[in-house]
Amino acid sequence: MKKLINKVENVVNEEMMGIGKAYPHLVKVNLDPYYVARVDAPIMGKVGIVSGTGSGHEPVDYGFVGYGMLDAACDGDIFTCQTPEAVLACDRLANGGMGVLNIAKNFSGDVMSFEVGGELASAEGIENELVVIADDVAVEDSTWTQGRRGLGSALFAEKVCGAAADQGRNLQECTAICKQVNDWGRSMGMALTSCTTPAKGSPTFDLPDDMMEIGVGVHGEPGRKRMPLKEADEIVEILADAVITDLPYKSGDEVWALVNGLGGTPLVELYVVYNKLADICSKLGIKITRNLVGNYVTSLDMAGCSITLVKLDYNLTKLWDYPVNTFALRWGV
Amino acid sequence: MKKLINKVENVVNEEMMGIGKAYPHLVKVNLDPYYVARVDAPIMGKVGIVSGTGSGHEPVDYGFVGYGMLDAACDGDIFTCQTPEAVLACDRLANGGMGVLNIAKNFSGDVMSFEVGGELASAEGIENELVVIADDVAVEDSTWTQGRRGLGSALFAEKVCGAAADQGRNLQECTAICKQVNDWGRSMGMALTSCTTPAKGSPTFDLPDDMMEIGVGVHGEPGRKRMPLKEADEIVEILADAVITDLPYKSGDEVWALVNGLGGTPLVELYVVYNKLADICSKLGIKITRNLVGNYVTSLDMAGCSITLVKLDYNLTKLWDYPVNTFALRWGV
Repeated sequence: MKKLINKVENVVNEEMMGIGKAYPHLVKVNLDPYYVARVDAPIMGKVGIVSGTGSGHEPVDYGFVGYGMLDAACDGDIFTCQTPEAVLACDRLANGGMGVLNIAKNFSGDVMSFEVGGELASAEGIENELVVIADDVAVEDSTWTQGRRGLGSALFAEKVCGAAADQGRNLQECTAICKQVNDWGRSMGMALTSCTTPAKGSPTFDLPDDMMEIGVGVHGEPGRKRMPLKEADEIVEILADAVITDLPYKSGDEVWALVNGLGGTPLVELYVVYNKLADICSKLGIKITRNLVGNYVTSLDMAGCSITLVKLDYNLTKLWDYPVNTFALRWGV
Repeated sequence: MKKLINKVENVVNEEMMGIGKAYPHLVKVNLDPYYVARVDAPIMGKVGIVSGTGSGHEPVDYGFVGYGMLDAACDGDIFTCQTPEAVLACDRLANGGMGVLNIAKNFSGDVMSFEVGGELASAEGIENELVVIADDVAVEDSTWTQGRRGLGSALFAEKVCGAAADQGRNLQECTAICKQVNDWGRSMGMALTSCTTPAKGSPTFDLPDDMMEIGVGVHGEPGRKRMPLKEADEIVEILADAVITDLPYKSGDEVWALVNGLGGTPLVELYVVYNKLADICSKLGIKITRNLVGNYVTSLDMAGCSITLVKLDYNLTKLWDYPVNTFALRWGV
């Protein structure tokens, strides 16, 4: 294992201290339990938006805490879900008297923690709702999940719900927007290589040099099928076909497209992927009116990518364009 | 070789088509020779800012083309310098009647191309200046360079010169600011693994599992020394000591700090590195008042990092804070 770390057991702790030192104007960091909140949280009179999952998917979720997006986020240790206590702490910090929307990605541990954490918050009088993002079309149930896993639509949901909250929409409206994103978003990923967690120190799964995993999960969990390595265009066709036919996205639809690297794939390759995805959508009459290309929902050092489409209406488009100031997404303020 | 590519010879071509499709509101892309320019170039009445180098270091340089940064950028094929013809094309597009500042990283081919390209531009009556960034303290001469190589200070120089030009400063003033950044900036990097270029298809250099390369170049060229792998804190001490003692940076200095991933290192590790760098600077009384953490000057899929410090004064700080709208750096507009 070759990693820029000290003691394996301190990786997340030191990461979070680093985040705290890098962005003291933006966030406050707590180490036990792990969570990050807007430095000015709680914001009174605004619906709070909270997310969380395991670490190892950076910039998910801490990179999205700030003005116009998340009020607080709690991530557990590497590939380990956050605790209910961390959810409760985030809900307290996100509660400005207007209630809190908790956004979970659909992994069993994450969801359970958000359910229990939300109940603890309710018991303290904090009104809260939970929306579970389950947009990954690869498998209906997985080793980590009942139902579909949560993937790139979560990023979009966090952005637009954060914007909606900032514009003064109430908890029911923010919840409805989040559900709309889950209904309108679809994703699928693929891996060229396994990731290596610091704790294990060796690849999470074996993938021969001439094979790839289609529909891989962000923890390296198995996907749809393992198949011989193909050229990028064929890979993008497989992913895009699975995503597009699932909703389905149709001619005339406007969409947000995310080409997401899993951490170990250079940007040059992600633009090769975007090039093909744009052609596929164009041929089908699907208009990509907003996009994001980069490493956003990662799996440590895994090489590979995922594709997400979210159907847009005018409201979602404007909420995506709304100013945001976080350390992973930043514009307009 | 496991990469998301089609034919090896088409990688950069398809990357650039992808960039063109992703950001038509921001940039226009040319394929022969390769260059990217602001969609609204040339901007009349503003000094033009141009940079360029080889591809494989994305988001360098195309990711920095846009409002408040570069007017145009030309990158050659992977790890291959841009041509003089590409520099000339960029200088034409960047020329709004106020002259053009060409910013090169110090690699022999890059510099030669900028020198010849600048002469061609001069012959057409385009006033231009060249500043060569040579901030990498690792080696005094390298396999790719006479003198020190150019590294992270180039990103800072492109940002602040772009801002200065946008504020209406003239070519001499922008040139002086660029030289100031080169005088005040120092960098050094290290590699845990080699990168693999599409053309070669196997690692550029051999690095045993228990070894690392201190002072590596962004093409994998040898650095100061090869040594046994150490914990992150020790690695950061080696890099920071080399950088800090070189200028030297002193107690009371304000600095911009870049913790840069080389492409294959997850964000979690870069924050572990930032955590230690912040402590080292703090102990020495060096104040990091601005920072950037992420994969910005990369070497395809190389695992490793580099550290850059640039001493700040009020002017440089305000130019860094000036709004920018490029696909790799974006804020405030």
